[in-house]
Amino acid sequence: MNHIEAANYLKKVTRSINDFPKKGIIFRDLTTIFQDRKAMKLTLDLLSDCLMEKNEEVISYDKFAGIEARGFLLAGGLSGKMGGGIVMIRKPGKLPFKKKRIEYKLEYGEDALEVHEDAIKPGERIIVVDDLLATGGTAEAGCKLIEELGGVVIKVLFLVELPDLNGRKKLQKYDLESVISFKGG
Amino acid sequence: MNHIEAANYLKKVTRSINDFPKKGIIFRDLTTIFQDRKAMKLTLDLLSDCLMEKNEEVISYDKFAGIEARGFLLAGGLSGKMGGGIVMIRKPGKLPFKKKRIEYKLEYGEDALEVHEDAIKPGERIIVVDDLLATGGTAEAGCKLIEELGGVVIKVLFLVELPDLNGRKKLQKYDLESVISFKGG
Repeated sequence: MNHIEAANYLKKVTRSINDFPKKGIIFRDLTTIFQDRKAMKLTLDLLSDCLMEKNEEVISYDKFAGIEARGFLLAGGLSGKMGGGIVMIRKPGKLPFKKKRIEYKLEYGEDALEVHEDAIKPGERIIVVDDLLATGGTAEAGCKLIEELGGVVIKVLFLVELPDLNGRKKLQKYDLESVISFKGG
Repeated sequence: MNHIEAANYLKKVTRSINDFPKKGIIFRDLTTIFQDRKAMKLTLDLLSDCLMEKNEEVISYDKFAGIEARGFLLAGGLSGKMGGGIVMIRKPGKLPFKKKRIEYKLEYGEDALEVHEDAIKPGERIIVVDDLLATGGTAEAGCKLIEELGGVVIKVLFLVELPDLNGRKKLQKYDLESVISFKGG
């Protein structure tokens, strides 16, 4: 199965839920990918292909940073397949040690992310991983947190991208890749 | 590095936080394992060794069920290393499709878990994965949810066990394994 066939399989397996969480929105439910052995394998194959240089060598990286909660699943998968430590970028109030916090704007209201201060050493090369790129606000905040700790964001990976929401623009300073894309919502 | 050396390394890397979340409790912070490339590898090596039969063959299983949120990271890691779909057992209100819900008692108060109704097909062989076994209430609820969908829990795996809290007793009908253990809290 080549890349295009694999991506098409993943799109086919994705469950789309109309009018969720509100009217006019098509929610892309990725649990149907995760729970499918073949789809999960293809997901990790395609994501790990994003870590290859043109000369077929793996890029140099130290850690995956997974964004709570589905990002943990994918960061874990990449670590299991490729090796590498995992940094947990969490919702507020979940981490027990000294933390750095960032607040960021949502469409309506605000949210925040936290990371342990010692999760990343200055200069470490970090690959940010999350399941879905929508407006990009959460991933942008996660990248900033990593940079505040002195980490270098060398790649930002998503399983799914919703290009109509322009998240890529907010993250344009980063090397961003996504495996599948749903236009029109 | 043999099993005992690997487990000792993981214990050494675990961060213990005294009097968190309240006086007298030693909180075992596993983020220091996850963020360490070597410790993460050893974690997945030891967990995946629990999936081997005596004849060195991998046991027959269909899916890993990860319990939110650190269970997702470990279920992802096992899927990346060994293959297999992942079922997300989530806190209430996080899943978008038709769900089964279970309520269970905590030391003080109640909590609940949810799973998508189509996450498991009847007869599927499921390996439950979570980071830490304390009183066992959450894992027990997760196993019951899986069984309500017709799944068969063939193993329950934890990275850490706190044997003083007797969680193993609550889960005695299952084949339970943990990688490291902290006595005395």
